[in-house]
Amino acid sequence: MAEYSSILLEKAVDELAKLPGIGRKTALRLALHLLGEEKTTTEMLTQALSNMRKNIVLCRHCYNISDSDICSICSNPKRDNGLLCVVADMRDVMAIERTSSFNGVYHVLGGVIDPINGVSPNDLKIKELVERSIREEFREIILALPATIEGDTTNYYIFKMLKHFKGDITVIAKGISVGDALEFADEVTLGRSITNRVPFN
Amino acid sequence: MAEYSSILLEKAVDELAKLPGIGRKTALRLALHLLGEEKTTTEMLTQALSNMRKNIVLCRHCYNISDSDICSICSNPKRDNGLLCVVADMRDVMAIERTSSFNGVYHVLGGVIDPINGVSPNDLKIKELVERSIREEFREIILALPATIEGDTTNYYIFKMLKHFKGDITVIAKGISVGDALEFADEVTLGRSITNRVPFN
Repeated sequence: MAEYSSILLEKAVDELAKLPGIGRKTALRLALHLLGEEKTTTEMLTQALSNMRKNIVLCRHCYNISDSDICSICSNPKRDNGLLCVVADMRDVMAIERTSSFNGVYHVLGGVIDPINGVSPNDLKIKELVERSIREEFREIILALPATIEGDTTNYYIFKMLKHFKGDITVIAKGISVGDALEFADEVTLGRSITNRVPFN
Repeated sequence: MAEYSSILLEKAVDELAKLPGIGRKTALRLALHLLGEEKTTTEMLTQALSNMRKNIVLCRHCYNISDSDICSICSNPKRDNGLLCVVADMRDVMAIERTSSFNGVYHVLGGVIDPINGVSPNDLKIKELVERSIREEFREIILALPATIEGDTTNYYIFKMLKHFKGDITVIAKGISVGDALEFADEVTLGRSITNRVPFN
């Protein structure tokens, strides 16, 4: 006999439990929840997931996820096309958009250089970034990669690849978080905060 | 602009966030995980959920969830058809099956009497239980409902409805958990444990 006396339920639990952070107990709870709801609830969920996975593409321009060939940021005439922000992941685009403090356009690399996990520069959209830096007219390219060794390596690699670029190349500031007490900040971050101090005005 | 620059993603997050215990942040993480995996991963998940919701039915006999008209427990010739266990929910069937200490058949009420939340005896499979108790030949009917006021009320109601029943009507034992220290058991449970003491043999 199957674990749950229903092979259909068992299969649904198996698939749900493959999702990150969802164990078999949670998966069972979700499946039983769907069984207790109207059939349309499950239909709407599966439709939305199928549609998303089938129809979402990468923007041909910036490689952010998009519903169409060119994403809503690249096609927005109000965005500043002279200011480019390079990020590792589409999650980072969302995070920066939520701050409302950036009005330029993006370039999503799809990761950072990470030899230990087999990610080489060729696996990332770095070639495409170099091409954009030649083809388009950017005033400034902001590197907004993770503050990790891999992020720093990628920053350095990109910096070398953009030798021809005449505009500014900047990186986002590292320092203590807003609202943080100094005593709880780690030494490296606090050190960077002091080194990269800015004029008080 | 949509919250996530993709309406397809937004819809998927909306639907995932309707699941119990899944907030919008977790929903986004799950959706992005699916986007990062092969398309077949999403297909297998949505197929399994659709199949489950469309094809799972209630067993015509005991009202447990089932892949077919009669569930795998009711149709199993090795189960003891003279011993019936009445439970509130299909989850309880799973819990009892996991103990491997019951070899009879079940009757799933679909809940307990709960006037505050609008659950009356007519909303439960109590009439069907009474019919089974007349039609089938049970030696014993075990009431295994939750140890709550609602569970006790339902026990009492069923007991009255089964007046004609000639066999034994029993309830599962309440007492301290196996492995529990007496000092940490609540008073009511410990009190029941003493009242319902059994011969040491």
